[in-house]
Amino acid sequence: MNLIEQLQQIVGANGVLTGDDVRSRPNHSWGRGECPAMAIVRPRTTEEVSRIMALCHAQEQRVVPWGGLTGLVDGITCEAGDLVLSMERMQNIEHCEPDAGTLRVQAGAVLQSVQDAAAEAGWQFAVDLGGRGSAQIGGLVATNAGGNAVVRYGMMREQVLGLEVVLADGRVMSSLNEVLKNNAGYDMKQLFIGSEGTLGIVTRAVLRLRPAANARQTAFLGMNSFDDVAALLRHLQSHLEGKLSSFEVMWANHYRFMVEELATHQTFLPVDYPYYVLVESEGQFPDREEALFTSVLGELMEEGTIADAVIAQSGQQAEQLWAMRDDVASLIEAMAPMAAFDISLPLRDMQTYVAAMEQGLAKRLPEARVVVFGHLGDGNIHLVVGNIPDHKAVEEVVYGELRNLGGSISAEHGIGLEKRDYLAYSKGEIEIDLMRTLKHALDPKGILNPGKVISA
Amino acid sequence: MNLIEQLQQIVGANGVLTGDDVRSRPNHSWGRGECPAMAIVRPRTTEEVSRIMALCHAQEQRVVPWGGLTGLVDGITCEAGDLVLSMERMQNIEHCEPDAGTLRVQAGAVLQSVQDAAAEAGWQFAVDLGGRGSAQIGGLVATNAGGNAVVRYGMMREQVLGLEVVLADGRVMSSLNEVLKNNAGYDMKQLFIGSEGTLGIVTRAVLRLRPAANARQTAFLGMNSFDDVAALLRHLQSHLEGKLSSFEVMWANHYRFMVEELATHQTFLPVDYPYYVLVESEGQFPDREEALFTSVLGELMEEGTIADAVIAQSGQQAEQLWAMRDDVASLIEAMAPMAAFDISLPLRDMQTYVAAMEQGLAKRLPEARVVVFGHLGDGNIHLVVGNIPDHKAVEEVVYGELRNLGGSISAEHGIGLEKRDYLAYSKGEIEIDLMRTLKHALDPKGILNPGKVISA
Repeated sequence: MNLIEQLQQIVGANGVLTGDDVRSRPNHSWGRGECPAMAIVRPRTTEEVSRIMALCHAQEQRVVPWGGLTGLVDGITCEAGDLVLSMERMQNIEHCEPDAGTLRVQAGAVLQSVQDAAAEAGWQFAVDLGGRGSAQIGGLVATNAGGNAVVRYGMMREQVLGLEVVLADGRVMSSLNEVLKNNAGYDMKQLFIGSEGTLGIVTRAVLRLRPAANARQTAFLGMNSFDDVAALLRHLQSHLEGKLSSFEVMWANHYRFMVEELATHQTFLPVDYPYYVLVESEGQFPDREEALFTSVLGELMEEGTIADAVIAQSGQQAEQLWAMRDDVASLIEAMAPMAAFDISLPLRDMQTYVAAMEQGLAKRLPEARVVVFGHLGDGNIHLVVGNIPDHKAVEEVVYGELRNLGGSISAEHGIGLEKRDYLAYSKGEIEIDLMRTLKHALDPKGILNPGKVISA
Repeated sequence: MNLIEQLQQIVGANGVLTGDDVRSRPNHSWGRGECPAMAIVRPRTTEEVSRIMALCHAQEQRVVPWGGLTGLVDGITCEAGDLVLSMERMQNIEHCEPDAGTLRVQAGAVLQSVQDAAAEAGWQFAVDLGGRGSAQIGGLVATNAGGNAVVRYGMMREQVLGLEVVLADGRVMSSLNEVLKNNAGYDMKQLFIGSEGTLGIVTRAVLRLRPAANARQTAFLGMNSFDDVAALLRHLQSHLEGKLSSFEVMWANHYRFMVEELATHQTFLPVDYPYYVLVESEGQFPDREEALFTSVLGELMEEGTIADAVIAQSGQQAEQLWAMRDDVASLIEAMAPMAAFDISLPLRDMQTYVAAMEQGLAKRLPEARVVVFGHLGDGNIHLVVGNIPDHKAVEEVVYGELRNLGGSISAEHGIGLEKRDYLAYSKGEIEIDLMRTLKHALDPKGILNPGKVISA
């Protein structure tokens, strides 16, 4: 019996895709390319995943785990002969504890359905991002996804109470903890969060829910200097009393691009400020929330920290503001050929970095143009560099200047294949050695998502 | 040259203690026993720690890392011939970023001094516990310490942005990240948090600070049922808008013991409620905070969820309430011979558990008496079982009933030596196998805190 037949015995004939059903799936981020894998196996239960991995381990078959394919770093890319293990038939929302605020789901559960289940129980699931309609919990765990509310709720890691993981050899590590505090031995689930499918396959998770927020306040602010932006962040963190849920900065080049060149978005504020900030707070009581938000922003306007402001007067207006911030697709389309980056570094170094990066680009790639924005409350900025002849030359400038300042080449997207060769820009030799030690200890045959994150 | 002399060459003659200077230090929790180690080496720098470990690795010398000795599970216990590595001369608060709210410290820095440095910069360090005057950051990291504000701010893990760790062979893994978001490769620091000194020696940490809280509200509540306690928790989590910072439950047997038998604490409420809750919220604006707190509690009293309440009218009164909750020392002294436990389990199982545990004790140890209290918002309860003939018999009841419900034998104190033989009550076989795999990969000679957490 060949491998395909053996897999069919485990998951049924419908569970294994081959030929055009494989070729029609992508091989790269943004849906690009054609998947060259030998097959896509689609288990329905943890036990099936376990049997698949035991089989692949015995045969040294390379396995590439797939979630919702919303990643951006080629973490799902296959070579010919690879087997894709897709979680698309493991989407169950299994159990909710409405008193404690926990939710147990299969790894293939889609983010949107998890958010809906949380809302139905009177809670919220606090990770949110543009790919919510496709992104799966397993992939979000495996990439330690971030999103727009990290400044308040943390990344995916902070939403995971328990995990069930199938190891490279098919053993099932079940650690479906439900409580905030559990110091009984090493917290093994931490190993798998953010390991991008290279150490194990997440099959199930217990998620921590947060109290639902019934009152949102949103404002778009014009700022005269980066120092004012930093002071604003500091002030809102304390004076909004922990309720600051988003702090998104747009450099002037980004705002202008969105409202002048794309012209699909409204001009909320004049285009002559050097920085703009989209801020949001989340509370329970609409009246109280509005009073606090407007009084805190009012004081900052009076003292000159904020130069100009629009406070959203309706949910619709808030959505328009967010639509501008989140319209990365239009930006990327308009700037092609382009390269997009997702970096992080301390607040104190950001101005220095952006200036050095812009100078470096002007010198090496005078035709290129750059747009800068990001989740500043998390130290995370995104760069889109457009009109470029050569991806590599841009990477050398962007990552080179970052290396000088000790920044991270990946704030939230992960490493995958795309950034792998730059990993040493952000991690020391010994840390990378230790990553290899770990990879070897957990996947000695190197069959799990081979070549991703670290080279073999 | 013998080992002592070699160590003296690294840290200077003053850096190595022997003889009575070792014997005068404890060997167990609560300051009990006499340390039988061959010596205590006290490095001042990471480089010295690195050289010490390289030497010990070469000679297969067992090393027991020491922080402030406030642990409660015999994680610092030595055998004759062991070398203690104490961080007591590495107490520097190295660097604060007042805008970003981060603090870099050496691992020997004492919690109180870290809290003070944070306060001086206009922030707070959010982990707090009774041992703040001695507990060191390195030990708090190594044990993933909890404390009284976990329900709001999380455990130590959530306060650690970056770590520097000396590995078993002396290599220095420096990963002093300062930003909230960094997905450049596996997050190796997670391995060391909560590993109780068995995988590496924390030498330095970058800590996340939180906005200072200028307005605290504290109340002590009498409750008619456990269901009311659960409803109260749920309601406060949403209606205090994320500002609920403590939710400490005292079963009637605890409150009565404190106010009737010890009689050193004030009787704040009548003694006839089955449960009492100490709640605290932390905000920025005293007037607003008081208004919110009293209105939310007032509504709950009106609808009968809260049976009786005292709201602290001053900082002093709040301190008296906390003094009662935190006076574990008196409790333990009064109940000797006793055994203390620190367990966690889901809210839904708590009543079942406590009843089964009490029945089990009544049957097996009719003379014993038990006092129950805990951080209920975290699923964490503490038990003190007094007047016992036999530690092991108590453990079998307490842990046995817990195992039936899938609870954790250690919510926050860790495993150390004390709970090691019960680890399998809370962790599956494969998870424990994986812990061993990790231990072997990182400390192949087994020289780091040998025998703690998992047996060799």
